[in-house]
Amino acid sequence: MPAQDRKRTVRALLDAVRAEGRRTLTAPEGKVLADAYGIAVPGEAVATDVDEAVACADRFGGPVVMKIVSPDIPHKTEAGGVVVGVRGAAEVRAAFHRIVGNARAHDATARVEGVQIQELLPPGLEVIVGAVTDPTFGKVVAFGLGGVLVEVLRDVTFRLAPVSGDEATSMLDSVRAAEVLRGVRGQAGVDRRALAAQIERVSHLVTDFPEIGEVDLNPVIATPEGAVAADVRVILAERQPPSRRRYTREEILTSMRRLMEPSSVAVIGASAEAGKIGNSVMRNLLDGGFAGEIHPVNPRAHDILGRKAYRSVTDVPGDVDVAVFAIPARAVPAALDEVGRRGIPNAVLIPSGFAETGEDALQDEIVTIAERHGVRVLGPNIYGYYATWQDLCATFCTPYDVKGGVALTSQSGGIGMAILGFARTTGTGVSAIVGLGNKSDLDEDDLLTWFGQDPHTDCVAMHLEDLKDGRAFVAAARETVPRKPVVVLKAGRTAAGARAAGSHTGALAGDDAVYDDVLRQAGVIRAPGLNDMLEYARALPVLPTPKGDNVVVITGAGGSGVLLSDAITDNGLSLMAIPPDLDTAFRRFIPPFGAAGNPVDITGGEPPSTYEATIRLGLEDPRVHALVLGYWHTVVTPPMAFAELTARVVAEFRERGVEKPVVASLAGDVEVEEACRYLYARGVVAYPYTTERPVEVLGAKYRWARAAGLLGGPS
Amino acid sequence: MPAQDRKRTVRALLDAVRAEGRRTLTAPEGKVLADAYGIAVPGEAVATDVDEAVACADRFGGPVVMKIVSPDIPHKTEAGGVVVGVRGAAEVRAAFHRIVGNARAHDATARVEGVQIQELLPPGLEVIVGAVTDPTFGKVVAFGLGGVLVEVLRDVTFRLAPVSGDEATSMLDSVRAAEVLRGVRGQAGVDRRALAAQIERVSHLVTDFPEIGEVDLNPVIATPEGAVAADVRVILAERQPPSRRRYTREEILTSMRRLMEPSSVAVIGASAEAGKIGNSVMRNLLDGGFAGEIHPVNPRAHDILGRKAYRSVTDVPGDVDVAVFAIPARAVPAALDEVGRRGIPNAVLIPSGFAETGEDALQDEIVTIAERHGVRVLGPNIYGYYATWQDLCATFCTPYDVKGGVALTSQSGGIGMAILGFARTTGTGVSAIVGLGNKSDLDEDDLLTWFGQDPHTDCVAMHLEDLKDGRAFVAAARETVPRKPVVVLKAGRTAAGARAAGSHTGALAGDDAVYDDVLRQAGVIRAPGLNDMLEYARALPVLPTPKGDNVVVITGAGGSGVLLSDAITDNGLSLMAIPPDLDTAFRRFIPPFGAAGNPVDITGGEPPSTYEATIRLGLEDPRVHALVLGYWHTVVTPPMAFAELTARVVAEFRERGVEKPVVASLAGDVEVEEACRYLYARGVVAYPYTTERPVEVLGAKYRWARAAGLLGGPS
Repeated sequence: MPAQDRKRTVRALLDAVRAEGRRTLTAPEGKVLADAYGIAVPGEAVATDVDEAVACADRFGGPVVMKIVSPDIPHKTEAGGVVVGVRGAAEVRAAFHRIVGNARAHDATARVEGVQIQELLPPGLEVIVGAVTDPTFGKVVAFGLGGVLVEVLRDVTFRLAPVSGDEATSMLDSVRAAEVLRGVRGQAGVDRRALAAQIERVSHLVTDFPEIGEVDLNPVIATPEGAVAADVRVILAERQPPSRRRYTREEILTSMRRLMEPSSVAVIGASAEAGKIGNSVMRNLLDGGFAGEIHPVNPRAHDILGRKAYRSVTDVPGDVDVAVFAIPARAVPAALDEVGRRGIPNAVLIPSGFAETGEDALQDEIVTIAERHGVRVLGPNIYGYYATWQDLCATFCTPYDVKGGVALTSQSGGIGMAILGFARTTGTGVSAIVGLGNKSDLDEDDLLTWFGQDPHTDCVAMHLEDLKDGRAFVAAARETVPRKPVVVLKAGRTAAGARAAGSHTGALAGDDAVYDDVLRQAGVIRAPGLNDMLEYARALPVLPTPKGDNVVVITGAGGSGVLLSDAITDNGLSLMAIPPDLDTAFRRFIPPFGAAGNPVDITGGEPPSTYEATIRLGLEDPRVHALVLGYWHTVVTPPMAFAELTARVVAEFRERGVEKPVVASLAGDVEVEEACRYLYARGVVAYPYTTERPVEVLGAKYRWARAAGLLGGPS
Repeated sequence: MPAQDRKRTVRALLDAVRAEGRRTLTAPEGKVLADAYGIAVPGEAVATDVDEAVACADRFGGPVVMKIVSPDIPHKTEAGGVVVGVRGAAEVRAAFHRIVGNARAHDATARVEGVQIQELLPPGLEVIVGAVTDPTFGKVVAFGLGGVLVEVLRDVTFRLAPVSGDEATSMLDSVRAAEVLRGVRGQAGVDRRALAAQIERVSHLVTDFPEIGEVDLNPVIATPEGAVAADVRVILAERQPPSRRRYTREEILTSMRRLMEPSSVAVIGASAEAGKIGNSVMRNLLDGGFAGEIHPVNPRAHDILGRKAYRSVTDVPGDVDVAVFAIPARAVPAALDEVGRRGIPNAVLIPSGFAETGEDALQDEIVTIAERHGVRVLGPNIYGYYATWQDLCATFCTPYDVKGGVALTSQSGGIGMAILGFARTTGTGVSAIVGLGNKSDLDEDDLLTWFGQDPHTDCVAMHLEDLKDGRAFVAAARETVPRKPVVVLKAGRTAAGARAAGSHTGALAGDDAVYDDVLRQAGVIRAPGLNDMLEYARALPVLPTPKGDNVVVITGAGGSGVLLSDAITDNGLSLMAIPPDLDTAFRRFIPPFGAAGNPVDITGGEPPSTYEATIRLGLEDPRVHALVLGYWHTVVTPPMAFAELTARVVAEFRERGVEKPVVASLAGDVEVEEACRYLYARGVVAYPYTTERPVEVLGAKYRWARAAGLLGGPS
């Protein structure tokens, strides 16, 4: 059906359903939608009396399924309203009477519009295809294998609608039981193209008609010859989500540039009194070494910490890029209005006392004021932000000055403090740390848009509890990921989606299941926990990008080799099958009883020269793409000897243009801690007392490289 | 059938099969075994010609399944040898000819003994019940849901055979899709008792006849009325495993006591020359402060480090408990023979150069010598061992003197060094560290037997790559777990079981799947990685045992509260539903906008008194069983203020006899590290920059408490 016609058909039908005050479509109505969008369904007709039913069944030839048609009976099976495999006139007559009788017994007031007669589908694999409206991401399509797999094991995958044919096909491979679709134990696989087409078409239907809340094709019977939906269930949404103000990429970058690279900062509520937030912010701006202008605003002071103070922000001379607020919540609206009138593009609202304490009206008020003036707002309820390369510390915490490649953001202040402490103790090189707090305006997608093109930033790591606009975030992530890794710690993972759901797909779309699939599709590296996010943020900018899948483990401790191999498998990495010539080359340096293959076990008693020779081999050979080192503390090769030789060899190859990720696990007495710090500072990601962590961060780097399309093969 | 009769029946049948040189039983033979052990199977008979087939089918009444009977065709379906749902004489005739024809086409030389006619089972849930012979644990039974769940998702569970009825029933709840057995979406559940009986009977069959290598009941058709095996497949083992020398508990304890609490130690190969292992061992024994006798043995010295040296161990005066070997491998047999003749019960073999370097014959030689004299051997190829409470450091590493409750063992020397370094840097209190190396004799079950009754040891943590005798280990673990936690890091997890397998169950019994289930059943806490094992070992002796499931989170940072809740769910713990009176009590101390319920969110700006008041409430209320604290670094409550008040309140309650596990996550600048050390030393398990770790170790404590039967409910 041409696009215009099909839209007109569906429009008319949905309007009619709405006019009747219904939200659930009947099966025949579902078939109209399916037919309009090319969703394959069995031949069917509705019979209003027994004779018509017999005639219908006769017309289809084979066995049929008979189902009650009633707008008041959503769960037909439970109401005894379905009979399967009816053959011949006598059986059709009996089934008709039984179904209508059961429906009456189930609900005497139900309107019975007839009995649907449907071609019986051939036996096949039962799968489920559906669509729901996610509060964060809008329309998403779902695919899963039917029965126990979906209902008990929740083996289901989601994508943002609409999906392309390729994306739909990728869903078939994304369920745990994907193998079944290709055929197991001698059974033929299903028609993947037909199945993908069903997903694709459902995705177009819900995209064209946002008022459709949920669609269930359950089951779709998939066979080697096709994929036909045995049942089509459509539920209209109760209400449309409010539309949100969006800014263009250029608008975002223009204001973000002035926020992150300001020349002039005003501090509203600056104070000379120690212990006040307005004092801490002033002090940190000064102590942090910010080279731009710093203008304290305080009606009761002439001078604060040696800088001239102004009564009002309207009095501050020159262009001001950022106004940092350190005043009580109640005073914010008036001051924000002045900031707007003064033409300052960014307001950083440190104060709390807004939506987080139930003061939603006050927060709405500042959003309205800011939008009226075109001021972008960071916060409220935040610690502020750091822009390290600008020596800018606009927070009430303490300055941080280790410049580097990772930008970190947090929705929560506590997590922001954990970021600061972790970064300081590990010496993590940072480009920015930004508090997002209540996200009344600026949020993760704005920051990602900026950091994505910020040359100081090599990696973005974000702690978040929700996304205000999932689609804007996905768009920003897709834009960023080909250039740099995006790490997300999504908190609230296990808060099972408690939303009321009228369909199977809806019940399966717990918040986290959708987040997980959508973030992965956007190429985001999801950190399983806070410490993982911090370690990824520390390691990813340090590690070179691997150019292929071949990981080689070189270990002095056989025991570490086994554990490192476990970690490699756990993290989806590939232990290289060492080619014979390379194996021979390694064997020249290791004792005859050292283990062949991978891990390369050089055994514990070896001197530094054996570590060095084997590491050189791994870096030299272009077939090797990443090295995982297992060091064992011995008298023959003390920790710092290992650290020095490894750093030296890696640096030498780097100078020659050979950059491969090298990670290390150091097993030994406490001297290994210093060796790890030495190595990390020189680009070798090294950890003591763990075989898991070095491989986890290497795994994160690989996940990004795959998502960014820098490695061949599927992501 | 009486036990004696059934054994005689099976014995005769197996002997006959062996006599024919076969290992695979035919279906009728399988039925004989099933009938003997009460394993429910459908009515069936073998027809050797078409007329007999028709007569059989007529006798069973309903539809039948027909299957080829041939000792040469193990996979009947693949050979076209199975037809299902045959009704009436004409269909039976046609099926008979088709089956025999297909078999001939599949393998013209196959011996065809007839066609089996079997009652067609009613439709039901297909499950698989089986048994295999595991190289580590011997006979294990398996249970899983049939089809995709087992074949693709490997949703299967194992237990040591034989199993009791209760154990068999527990297997039904141990698969991921367990819910299906109880009935989903309005379907009736299956007959659990009948299904458990099938498992139990299979377990008795393989226990009674160790020569049965594998059994597959696949599928078992489970319905609300019963559980009947549609197919019984039995394969005999190729060979019996060699039997192993076992010691009684008393024998083990007698020699272990002299090893771990020695009065006199001889060092064979003691040396005055720095850099030699025999020098390091002597030095460490002396520097460690061992109060017993230390006797250097060296034919070329009169005196070593101030102690009189002996030419031979036979010259050493008095009772000697332990001989530590620091001589080359080649010299070990002769010296070990002297140790044996001298009546020394323990030989600690530090030297390498045995099985780990391919010198299996040399290792066999020392085992023979040791067994001849009744000497127990630790090693070879180890760093030695520490017995901290004896001030004994019989290693070539460095002394360790922080006495405490955890005993650690490692199969690998590298992991042993990681244990030492981690313990030293964290100040972990240790009762022993023992290297096991090649485990030529003493192994994990001997050590567990000792540590289980050692009053200095509160927790045992073991790194292992294999178990020589899985059943002995399980027995020792079951003995120990009710008294103290046993943590195991099993390396080589992901080395998928590569054994050739002739049955479905065999293919599913990858090494790690069996290890995982069997260790869990033994009540062992499995650590997912090295660092986890170390952190569990550090924390478990420090944490009091919880007396119930109710965990309460008290947090200053809402963001930490969300992440801590995630971790609580991830670790199988229960966020307490706060009763209204307790909620009211908490609310007296928190701002009106603080979050109700659990987490108790006291919000970020609160002074120490709010933390203190809410922690007191949690400790005071007997309905609360464990506290998880989320601290947020602020000026109002600096890290050490939080640490001091928390430690003080916990100590105060401890004095009053109220001991609950309290763990804490500290989010803040680097000062939180000192606060964590302060808290940990005072019994509050605290970590900086992570919300996961404190909950993981609390989860480990809960897993142990459940396994030890100290908490109600299922483990």
